[in-house]
Amino acid sequence: LLKKIEEQLEIIKRGVVELIPEDEFIKKLKKGKPLRIKWGADPSAPDIHLGHTVILNKLRQFQKLGHEVIFLIGDFTARIGDPTGKSETRKPLTKQEIERNARTYQEQVFKVLDKKRTKVVYNSHWLSKLKIEDVISLAAKYTVARMLEREDFMSRYEKERPISIHEFLYPLIQGYDSVEIKADVEIGGTDQKFNMLVGRELQREFKEEPQAIVTLPLLEGTDGVQKMSKSLNNYIGVTEPPSEIYGKTMSISDELMFRYYELLTDEDLERVKTLHPKEAKKKLAGLLVSRFYSEEEARAAGEEFESVFKKGNLPQDVPLMTIPKKEIGIVEVMIKGGLASSRSEARRLIKQGGVRVGEEAVKDENLLLNLADPQEEKIINVGKRKFLRVRGGR
Amino acid sequence: LLKKIEEQLEIIKRGVVELIPEDEFIKKLKKGKPLRIKWGADPSAPDIHLGHTVILNKLRQFQKLGHEVIFLIGDFTARIGDPTGKSETRKPLTKQEIERNARTYQEQVFKVLDKKRTKVVYNSHWLSKLKIEDVISLAAKYTVARMLEREDFMSRYEKERPISIHEFLYPLIQGYDSVEIKADVEIGGTDQKFNMLVGRELQREFKEEPQAIVTLPLLEGTDGVQKMSKSLNNYIGVTEPPSEIYGKTMSISDELMFRYYELLTDEDLERVKTLHPKEAKKKLAGLLVSRFYSEEEARAAGEEFESVFKKGNLPQDVPLMTIPKKEIGIVEVMIKGGLASSRSEARRLIKQGGVRVGEEAVKDENLLLNLADPQEEKIINVGKRKFLRVRGGR
Repeated sequence: LLKKIEEQLEIIKRGVVELIPEDEFIKKLKKGKPLRIKWGADPSAPDIHLGHTVILNKLRQFQKLGHEVIFLIGDFTARIGDPTGKSETRKPLTKQEIERNARTYQEQVFKVLDKKRTKVVYNSHWLSKLKIEDVISLAAKYTVARMLEREDFMSRYEKERPISIHEFLYPLIQGYDSVEIKADVEIGGTDQKFNMLVGRELQREFKEEPQAIVTLPLLEGTDGVQKMSKSLNNYIGVTEPPSEIYGKTMSISDELMFRYYELLTDEDLERVKTLHPKEAKKKLAGLLVSRFYSEEEARAAGEEFESVFKKGNLPQDVPLMTIPKKEIGIVEVMIKGGLASSRSEARRLIKQGGVRVGEEAVKDENLLLNLADPQEEKIINVGKRKFLRVRGGR
Repeated sequence: LLKKIEEQLEIIKRGVVELIPEDEFIKKLKKGKPLRIKWGADPSAPDIHLGHTVILNKLRQFQKLGHEVIFLIGDFTARIGDPTGKSETRKPLTKQEIERNARTYQEQVFKVLDKKRTKVVYNSHWLSKLKIEDVISLAAKYTVARMLEREDFMSRYEKERPISIHEFLYPLIQGYDSVEIKADVEIGGTDQKFNMLVGRELQREFKEEPQAIVTLPLLEGTDGVQKMSKSLNNYIGVTEPPSEIYGKTMSISDELMFRYYELLTDEDLERVKTLHPKEAKKKLAGLLVSRFYSEEEARAAGEEFESVFKKGNLPQDVPLMTIPKKEIGIVEVMIKGGLASSRSEARRLIKQGGVRVGEEAVKDENLLLNLADPQEEKIINVGKRKFLRVRGGR
């Protein structure tokens, strides 16, 4: 079932930032047995976007090569939340909330992963059994100086921003997960490198063969600049409607498109580059919709996109808002019309180039719309999927 | 039962290095209720010497003022030992060993403390019930930077000597003991100040009134220079025979004698200073023997001391060693005669002024004893209690 080592290596290394250490990894492959690939996920925010699927895509590649994914749901820390009580977003979750999030997570994850080659485990299963002496023993296996070498810790320490001592325990606990599940490989974003290396060392301390580590880049959002994240509103969620996934994908730059091809698909990049960029983008949009829905829905989304944007048709049922003024600022109308929930969101959408009036992208957040002629309708759209008709008069 | 605040304060502050914070402590006294005075002890080394009794003496003063001592036996950490496995002296102890040591400890402690006003508690009682989430919450209450402010941590960090992360947990665990026993005051050596302050803060975090802290100096050993410790052989153990305690006390300098009076007794220092130093020393020696044995045994020890040292009598059964040489070095004869176990110990004893030949203290470690006349016996003694007769010939 397993392909030749060289073929496996080529597939596995695509888009990867680091593979540490490559020689040990090759040795593992040479055993000719399915490897246990660990992926840890936090069930406190169950919505997966394309950024997460960089890793899922890599995991799927491992599965296609015959390896087994250990999908580790980090319910233990979610249950604890932020013990300093300082973070609003890290409130402790109840068992029910975690169970619900974990289910949602799995539904989304299995749009990419192969269920048959995935084992789902919850780390509370073993962590909740640890006693205080186990925690002390674990903490004895790592030094303060080495923990402070982690980039974010060192920078906070130097800037005199507080680091609570329990933050030193989390990398150890996360590393201990690797010991428990006997991971052969752990996979994560570049921001997880340090923690994954701790796992490697703890396995050694516990007389296990240390895991190899695969780091993947953090995917840029649709703006092509910042890391994809829900809070920056530059994301494509895997549960968004097909037309939304398709439309958002069509809005990215050509450069970013190649990056998405590399990190999110198995397509041959050289062949993609021979296509016209517009066609390549359609193909990418179709591939993504197919992955999260079906080929049929991908085709339908493509057709709708063509009909709306190429032929100038509007989607049906665009709401009309009548404003009893001669003119109105673009930010204000966006809020009134429900296209943005705050002034700052409206300004950000404009800055990202996602707001249009008619055919024109809005460049200036102080733009005034002339509503003097009550017969004339302005069509405003945001992110290519939200539309609003606006006119003057009462 | 409780004396006036001012009187209490005067007694409590005697010999103390710091009382933190004095105003809060006075407030506690003003409540007019017996305070809970915490003292934590490590049952891995059950032999108590005078150095420890500085604290015991202070605790006894608290008891005489009507307060209650919580004698906390730190069996929990003794049970864990050194989880890095690096320290030979901190092997984990078994339940039986701990129980035995704790019993020995108590026998010695109650030579000073009032049993009726002492509550003995074992911290494993509550610590072993802590779960991993409790440890994490505890660790969340303190920052890495503040922990690194502890002098020995900072110095090790700067010198790049390893600090294991579990070492950051111990002050928190020790501080949590104060929370559990609701300590009003904690007492310890100056080396415990940082840890006791952690306890203060944790109590605040747990919405308790924070404990006040009393630090006491580390007692100099009989050499008057280094901290009293068994390994430096400059200690007076509370379980040593009365004649040994008496004799060792008589060997200290006048300056050190006043220090011992201050830290180990309740005597009026001004009145002590009116006595002839020799008389004052006899009185101190007698007080110490009385405390650990009885007045009768103190009197007997004093009489024996007089008879041996003042009247030139030797104790009975002094061994005789015949050496087939015309002369021999003092260090060599001490080792041969069992007065020292190594050259370095012999040299240290000489340096400390504890070795005599006849009436003369030995100043020079290269001293040669003339054994040319086989009829002449030299009498060597070490620490005033070990004697040896030496002569030349076969």
